[in-house]
Amino acid sequence: MTQLDLNLLGCGSATSTLRHLPSCQVLNVRGHLMMIDCGEGAQLEMRRMRLKFSRLNHIFISHLHGDHCFGLPGLLSTMALQGKGGTVTVHIFKDGAEQFGRLLDYFCRERPFELKFNIIDTHKAVIYEDDAITVSTFPLTHRLPCVGFLFKEKPKNRHVNAMACAQANVPAHFMNSLRNGADYVAPNGTVIPNAELTTDADPAISFAYCSDTKYSKRVIKAVEGVDWLYHESTYGDENLKNAVKRYHSTARQAGMVAREAGVKRLILGHYSNRYIDESILLQQAQEEFPATILGNEGMTIDLNNIKE
Amino acid sequence: MTQLDLNLLGCGSATSTLRHLPSCQVLNVRGHLMMIDCGEGAQLEMRRMRLKFSRLNHIFISHLHGDHCFGLPGLLSTMALQGKGGTVTVHIFKDGAEQFGRLLDYFCRERPFELKFNIIDTHKAVIYEDDAITVSTFPLTHRLPCVGFLFKEKPKNRHVNAMACAQANVPAHFMNSLRNGADYVAPNGTVIPNAELTTDADPAISFAYCSDTKYSKRVIKAVEGVDWLYHESTYGDENLKNAVKRYHSTARQAGMVAREAGVKRLILGHYSNRYIDESILLQQAQEEFPATILGNEGMTIDLNNIKE
Repeated sequence: MTQLDLNLLGCGSATSTLRHLPSCQVLNVRGHLMMIDCGEGAQLEMRRMRLKFSRLNHIFISHLHGDHCFGLPGLLSTMALQGKGGTVTVHIFKDGAEQFGRLLDYFCRERPFELKFNIIDTHKAVIYEDDAITVSTFPLTHRLPCVGFLFKEKPKNRHVNAMACAQANVPAHFMNSLRNGADYVAPNGTVIPNAELTTDADPAISFAYCSDTKYSKRVIKAVEGVDWLYHESTYGDENLKNAVKRYHSTARQAGMVAREAGVKRLILGHYSNRYIDESILLQQAQEEFPATILGNEGMTIDLNNIKE
Repeated sequence: MTQLDLNLLGCGSATSTLRHLPSCQVLNVRGHLMMIDCGEGAQLEMRRMRLKFSRLNHIFISHLHGDHCFGLPGLLSTMALQGKGGTVTVHIFKDGAEQFGRLLDYFCRERPFELKFNIIDTHKAVIYEDDAITVSTFPLTHRLPCVGFLFKEKPKNRHVNAMACAQANVPAHFMNSLRNGADYVAPNGTVIPNAELTTDADPAISFAYCSDTKYSKRVIKAVEGVDWLYHESTYGDENLKNAVKRYHSTARQAGMVAREAGVKRLILGHYSNRYIDESILLQQAQEEFPATILGNEGMTIDLNNIKE
């Protein structure tokens, strides 16, 4: 299995409390870290979860509310102090790039890494791609421009069956072709089908991040069929009016989105500070979609591990 | 005794760790809170120490390094969400007012309190005064403009001796005059000296905050004779060269400043992240000045309580 872990650093909403920090998650894609939202205190939570600053090269900011981005100046300053090299790309709306760019050019002018801002907007678009993964945006429905992020692993290589290859005398240099699905043609012209020399590739996993948004059909459409869905669940049923008014969702609505989109697993978060115990939120979401997890700070979820 | 408590919220230096947060202290002057520096996470530490946002009206920022001010956007945004009213004054260098003013006008435009910036510079000056206290700046010696803050209680009222007043038939309306030191003239013309009707006022306490600075004669002069001195002690003896180069102090130098300035008590802080255990810093400071305390997060010091 190629590593794909989701680390939850902040599961609270705008008012941070002693129980929950503002929004922040870190996706570990084969050792490369991608941060999703960066609330105040993100750098400290990275330390607490032993996530290495040196491995963080991409930060995705869903929208310009403080609880989703006020951790940026401190995090980037600490990364500069630690001698982080290479490039750090912050994927962010234009105003955010201007605000934080100006602040960092003042407070963190000498930085050993190149700081890049990749300007995003509310259109559906692929904003990042490498050998392992593509990241795309899709619009959410919040009080101000806000996007969700869809992380999609690329199809993986097939697994070579070493024993079968040895018996068929397949040369080492052909292994990569095998992993990519090619049949082997022996020197005597015999064709050995790929399926006899390899086993199926691990499934390519998808993860969608939705914060902050009200219940929305277009969100359901955007996250259709993903393996893992993180969806905000600020309120319980009794605060549905507040949720609608403030362009947030209830836990039940998060569950409805998960069910209607046909996802495999749902993770809750962005809890209002009025809940001392979120089990009521879990219960209401599970009434709609049983395969729901209550996100919590310090939690690491192996996204490859979708137990049936 | 009139309340004068110093709360330590952050005792670390630029690189925050799981052991120490960046610089932040809150002085509680008879229920009115004054924050001194505001590193990232200050708002959360206020909650942890049960300090009320509603009582915080003044924030003093010593200089424009991120570990002394990156907590401002989050703190002020949370205060706005909490419905804090009145005026919040941030005493800060001009560039800081511009940087954070712009950021807050974007991210925290709707705030129920008036946000004022009081521009300070490196001159010695009284920057705040009320019935209880004066706050003045004095220059420190750091890599960029940086000031210390001197908090000085005003002379307090004498204590009325209720028994003596009853015996002399002093009327209730004269009590305030008594507290201010007036003699009482009875209706028959007899003068009763104030000293027979009152006891001495509590001493007016002074507290000086010095962060960040290298060892400096002008700092010693500025903090001469204060009751309590907070002085940064980033390094131990073995890192004296680093201290000099980076315009910081060793714990021993903090002790020397305390001794040479003839203060009563010294509090250490701003520890480099290289120290896992700061007892070595305490020891080195105490070799110069025995009445030294190792500051730590969560500590509340009653500044009235200067045990001999």
